Amino acid sequence: MLSQLKYLEAKPLNIDRFAKILSTSVVVPDKVVSNDDIIQRHDLIATDRAVQYAIGIKERRYADENTLVSDLLYQAAKQCLDQAQLDPEKMDRVIYTKLMGDQIVPATSIAVLKKLGIRRGIPAFDILAACSGFVHLMDMVIRYIDSGDDYVLILGGDISSRLANTKNKKDTRTIFLQGDAVVGMLLGRSDTQHFLATYLYTDNTYFDYSYIPFGTELLNKSKAFNDEMFNMQMPDGMVVHESVIDSCELVTNKLLTETNLTLDDIDVFITCDQTTMTWEAQLKRINVPKEKSTSSFCKYGNTVAAMSLINLHEMILTGKLKRGMTVLFMAHGAGASGGGFVFRY
Amino acid sequence: MLSQLKYLEAKPLNIDRFAKILSTSVVVPDKVVSNDDIIQRHDLIATDRAVQYAIGIKERRYADENTLVSDLLYQAAKQCLDQAQLDPEKMDRVIYTKLMGDQIVPATSIAVLKKLGIRRGIPAFDILAACSGFVHLMDMVIRYIDSGDDYVLILGGDISSRLANTKNKKDTRTIFLQGDAVVGMLLGRSDTQHFLATYLYTDNTYFDYSYIPFGTELLNKSKAFNDEMFNMQMPDGMVVHESVIDSCELVTNKLLTETNLTLDDIDVFITCDQTTMTWEAQLKRINVPKEKSTSSFCKYGNTVAAMSLINLHEMILTGKLKRGMTVLFMAHGAGASGGGFVFRY
Repeated sequence: MLSQLKYLEAKPLNIDRFAKILSTSVVVPDKVVSNDDIIQRHDLIATDRAVQYAIGIKERRYADENTLVSDLLYQAAKQCLDQAQLDPEKMDRVIYTKLMGDQIVPATSIAVLKKLGIRRGIPAFDILAACSGFVHLMDMVIRYIDSGDDYVLILGGDISSRLANTKNKKDTRTIFLQGDAVVGMLLGRSDTQHFLATYLYTDNTYFDYSYIPFGTELLNKSKAFNDEMFNMQMPDGMVVHESVIDSCELVTNKLLTETNLTLDDIDVFITCDQTTMTWEAQLKRINVPKEKSTSSFCKYGNTVAAMSLINLHEMILTGKLKRGMTVLFMAHGAGASGGGFVFRY
Repeated sequence: MLSQLKYLEAKPLNIDRFAKILSTSVVVPDKVVSNDDIIQRHDLIATDRAVQYAIGIKERRYADENTLVSDLLYQAAKQCLDQAQLDPEKMDRVIYTKLMGDQIVPATSIAVLKKLGIRRGIPAFDILAACSGFVHLMDMVIRYIDSGDDYVLILGGDISSRLANTKNKKDTRTIFLQGDAVVGMLLGRSDTQHFLATYLYTDNTYFDYSYIPFGTELLNKSKAFNDEMFNMQMPDGMVVHESVIDSCELVTNKLLTETNLTLDDIDVFITCDQTTMTWEAQLKRINVPKEKSTSSFCKYGNTVAAMSLINLHEMILTGKLKRGMTVLFMAHGAGASGGGFVFRY
């Protein structure tokens, strides 16, 4: 491991009321943007072939300029509810892990309730934890359901192309990476235990290795937007790449120890894929064959908190993940925040 | 009630591992800003006396331009940990409810871990729920501790003066309102039940009545900051004022019903105070004498998610709230998100 931090063992869950994934959804905008589109738009010295070779991406989706994040999230919510045939008014809570969302205040999750036409006072709020947001949400829902909730809807992803590409940005290290997508997951109560272990952590020694600088400090000192304020800053991309691979190994080991399982017991392995190489390197590090996993980076790019769930949803759609199978699910984000679960789907 | 939404009854907590408030803290910047300071700075047609008469505020604090939110949060965290004499490495989780925070990514709570010099991989993330953020956090911690955590630190508040006042803003309806403050609360496991009931809700019919517009949509269409982007917009302040009072009545009734208590059983009543009049009107609506409550609005202004905890902390410091007493604690925020608890301190 690169970092010298001490990592605690997974803490056993004290749970008597169990949670289960009822449905999942992925919503992407229709507009496909190729590497050539970006090269032409920003007049870059690059080729589609070189970009594909360097990071593995072929295309990504961008929302059109009139689309709100909450419009996409509404669709993701609707799909989850329809799939599970759940009356939306029966949800106990809606939580969204955002990057920017529609507005600073109120929470974008409340905009989703409004678009769903909810006529009950369902609690809702947003969280922020970069690419690891969805694992924080899933961990939270296990605990909400244990302590009394019956149905919780969680949402993730954003229109992150607006942070990266709308200005005169020409940083070829990051301009091809991001795409727009949102995801949803509806969890409900179950008589049997599905989530066998959960593990979350941060590593503050990586705090300065990937960040989006905009916040109260910049608001104080700046009078105008500039290209770098909303752009993911990565002073040393290799450190970030390595930290994700380390994180994968750490979380895998902690979860297998806690569940007394081996990698052979895992049917499906889901992780986030900041690039195709990052995905491949994770599988290689823990020696998991590609057939047990999937990466959607080549067609959707880095979709922040949506990545891991897009991959899970893909495995469900293609029939590779069936009910009863055992899944190791994880995500890693900026500020070296990460974690995951072992669950029976 | 103004709204036609249906409000569910409080859902009973299924909890066997109990949470308790171990310590609380309030940190405000040193710099006191009077009404006259603001009037002069922005060349406004107003008087200190008129401002005090209209909204009840005498002064508020502004952080100096080199202070980060995480600097203040670090102090709030340190005070909570010192007061409870807890080794910081023993925290299971740190969560911060922000308005803007230091940066978009990583979570500002991770910056706090870094400033505390934490050498363990403690999970941390931020949430957003406007002025109601702290009740969402407290509700969450009850559930984290029930399901296995031993110690959770929660933080709230922001340097919101930077959103309201650094530009050429002259909106006299809102320019005097906001102040900077942060708060902390450390919760730990207890053998006995302290939190007797929790109630959270949103009312999306108020979604457009108070909001801070900045988000992905504006980022898409704008090239420069403008004064209104980061300014709390309130098209009809009276509706917001009324909704907070309605919310107070709603949450009080739901919590008393769930706990089988009457208002006479409540020793201390804590709510948020967007103005002095909003605080007074809440007490009047539910017929609670001022002696059972407090408002710090006159000296700190609207401090977003910090408000209710500032008032709780004040009651503890002045000896009006003692261990064993019964507290009705609540907060209400933009997008009509609100809620509260009955707990034995």
